[in-house]
Amino acid sequence: MRLSRYFLPTLKETPAEAEVVSHRLMLRAGMIRQASSGIYSWLPLGLKVLQNIEEIVRREQLRSGAQEILMPTIQSADLWIESGRYEDYGAEMLRITDRRGREMLYGPTNEELITDIIRSDIKSYRDLPKNLFHIQWKFRDEIRPRFGVMRGREFLMKDNYSFDLDEAAARHSYNRMFVAYLRTFQAMGLRAFPMRADSGPIGGDMSHEFLVLAETGESKVFFHKDMDALAIPGDDVDYDGDLQPIVDQWTSLYAASDEQHDAANCPVAAEDLNSGRGIEVGHIFFFGTKYSKPMGAVVQGPGGDEILVQMGSYGIGVSRLVAAVIEASHDENGIIWPESVAPFRVGLMNLRIDDAGCTAAADDLYGKLQAAGVDVLYDDRDERAGAKFSRMDLIGLPWQIAVGPRGLKDGIVEVKNRATGERIDLSPEDALARFATAK
Amino acid sequence: MRLSRYFLPTLKETPAEAEVVSHRLMLRAGMIRQASSGIYSWLPLGLKVLQNIEEIVRREQLRSGAQEILMPTIQSADLWIESGRYEDYGAEMLRITDRRGREMLYGPTNEELITDIIRSDIKSYRDLPKNLFHIQWKFRDEIRPRFGVMRGREFLMKDNYSFDLDEAAARHSYNRMFVAYLRTFQAMGLRAFPMRADSGPIGGDMSHEFLVLAETGESKVFFHKDMDALAIPGDDVDYDGDLQPIVDQWTSLYAASDEQHDAANCPVAAEDLNSGRGIEVGHIFFFGTKYSKPMGAVVQGPGGDEILVQMGSYGIGVSRLVAAVIEASHDENGIIWPESVAPFRVGLMNLRIDDAGCTAAADDLYGKLQAAGVDVLYDDRDERAGAKFSRMDLIGLPWQIAVGPRGLKDGIVEVKNRATGERIDLSPEDALARFATAK
Repeated sequence: MRLSRYFLPTLKETPAEAEVVSHRLMLRAGMIRQASSGIYSWLPLGLKVLQNIEEIVRREQLRSGAQEILMPTIQSADLWIESGRYEDYGAEMLRITDRRGREMLYGPTNEELITDIIRSDIKSYRDLPKNLFHIQWKFRDEIRPRFGVMRGREFLMKDNYSFDLDEAAARHSYNRMFVAYLRTFQAMGLRAFPMRADSGPIGGDMSHEFLVLAETGESKVFFHKDMDALAIPGDDVDYDGDLQPIVDQWTSLYAASDEQHDAANCPVAAEDLNSGRGIEVGHIFFFGTKYSKPMGAVVQGPGGDEILVQMGSYGIGVSRLVAAVIEASHDENGIIWPESVAPFRVGLMNLRIDDAGCTAAADDLYGKLQAAGVDVLYDDRDERAGAKFSRMDLIGLPWQIAVGPRGLKDGIVEVKNRATGERIDLSPEDALARFATAK
Repeated sequence: MRLSRYFLPTLKETPAEAEVVSHRLMLRAGMIRQASSGIYSWLPLGLKVLQNIEEIVRREQLRSGAQEILMPTIQSADLWIESGRYEDYGAEMLRITDRRGREMLYGPTNEELITDIIRSDIKSYRDLPKNLFHIQWKFRDEIRPRFGVMRGREFLMKDNYSFDLDEAAARHSYNRMFVAYLRTFQAMGLRAFPMRADSGPIGGDMSHEFLVLAETGESKVFFHKDMDALAIPGDDVDYDGDLQPIVDQWTSLYAASDEQHDAANCPVAAEDLNSGRGIEVGHIFFFGTKYSKPMGAVVQGPGGDEILVQMGSYGIGVSRLVAAVIEASHDENGIIWPESVAPFRVGLMNLRIDDAGCTAAADDLYGKLQAAGVDVLYDDRDERAGAKFSRMDLIGLPWQIAVGPRGLKDGIVEVKNRATGERIDLSPEDALARFATAK
């Protein structure tokens, strides 16, 4: 993509309303713009990151055996009245009356709607287990939306729901998501720890939240120092096999956010306890028959008896993760994208538009990178080199290639790694070969 | 995917509420379920088709030079008051009051919001042209939602917006979309004709709607018989080049829906006039400064003067297209998916689960098809063969492979083309080779 054509409205000034670094950098890098309080438009650069993160979430869900569906954003109040949550949910629920006077709402979560689908279309024990996920916009009418997409009102969430015949099977479904979540966050370059959690308004008996470590995280977290060394299951993980040992390995070590942590009664010796700051990016729940009972979601068992379905639900904050990655990976000059979520892999700069040789060399390298399938943003604008370097650092592409007249005299371009700051000189051919081959 | 694990709740009975064939087949094939009036949940099979169609739309938009963004579903009423459309839009607009008493709405379209982004972030003539698209859920509170996703209340639409410095450039932007639309519908296996149209509530000076031909279409259409022979621009189309000749070729031929057609004054001789039925799937508009003027979207020209931006907008009904494809491609047994949008390419059936040799052969072929990257749905359920054949015909996968004990005795499986009904006998190895190689 040529920058001269790209819609990338970067800002030199830091917007006054942004309190946290991810919000500041997302505005400055031209990734988002506020549409109204707590509601954002995603501009091209931001949307590419959001889509990359969404795709990692989708890939790991499918790999774990979950199937994708898509429920609507607008729901009827009837189902929520049936489950008993319509009044409980309070002012955070965006309530709507349609033209015929029916009470509707913008879904803040989907337990009721999915239970309605299951009770209508799953009738036999043979149809279980099922795990259905969707990635859809949600709305929670926060009293004080802030921190950009970190705590917005309209946000993209992956939520899924498992349906099992008994508690043992339901625990296996829970363990699948536990493992899938460890893998999902790692694939985005994040270090995420599961912590035992309250179930809150979702309700239920067992729950873990996943927090990613970031110096600027919203809450303080405490965890056993051995947690740092625990391995994340690899691509060979067998989701049909016994996952309990993996889950036990993680849950046997102490980990708690400041809400749960009590220094006086901490079971871990001070010298074994690490602390840091974290951002919640995922939450998993087992809640048994909490919804299947009031809503009558039953299947016929092998003996013809009616069995209430055992359920769990599992959420990942997809749009929030864009901010979380930035909180975990930035420096004073801007964002540092991990390669797996970066909007472009390479930022190519022509340092002297008015130099015909330089422009020809940069154009040539751009064409060849594109032909080799490298996702590259090409700064071909008529601006001074300093502005180009600053903008590339700000938007945080993993690799920068600078093409300038001085280097070209010696037959070289400069390749910089955004994360380490390391610079090396390469011939244009070697630079091409470096990125055209496997990552 | 093994059918024994897949969530595919097909129905034997035709649901009474479905008036049109696409609605009936989408319900029977387990693609969608109604969540509330005019609002649907997409089940796994339906969502795969929706995603395939969305991806074709995205690909052709990007190819035409448009850039993807994502605006939110919930908008502030303020912008609509500014443009003067807040009252005009009437009861179809879903109006919402948030917890702080602010007037909000669920976007039925996005001219106001995109104009707000542009006026804030595009300041110079150098930043033009721009064409920004998004694929997002919309809501129109239809008084009488019907025909399933064909006329739902919550629906997925691709809409984009072009911004140009003058009318000539704006016409080029319009022509780009005209060509991109021809290509988009063709890529889904549809025959779509552009017809001059009223601008309706969007407003503007020039407008075409695109209708796909389907026997069961909602409106009657009339068109010059030569239209059938017109070529669709290929992959080598140059979107930066002059597209006017292509557009002229199409628009010089008569085409009109029954709303516009007047038999008494038709310029085409009766023997040159074809007629059929059509479904509107796209609509493009040029409207100049209709929104930029009231909302003050100006850029600084080369001489420092302020220039009002020239705009157009362009819509494709993404969720509606799923139904339109079915209306255009089905028979009495069910859906017939074009390969480019099919949820799976191949449906593999094990006709005798209780026959060890048959099951081993079917399992083996399934494993090999998967390993070769073929998207295959494998019916491994314990059911009689007749039910399996019927369901495969109903869900309409392009190719069926039946593995049964009798054929295996002769070393063959049966491969059926869903569209033509043609059946051929092949060895399992040849069947694999047929699908493992290029399409």
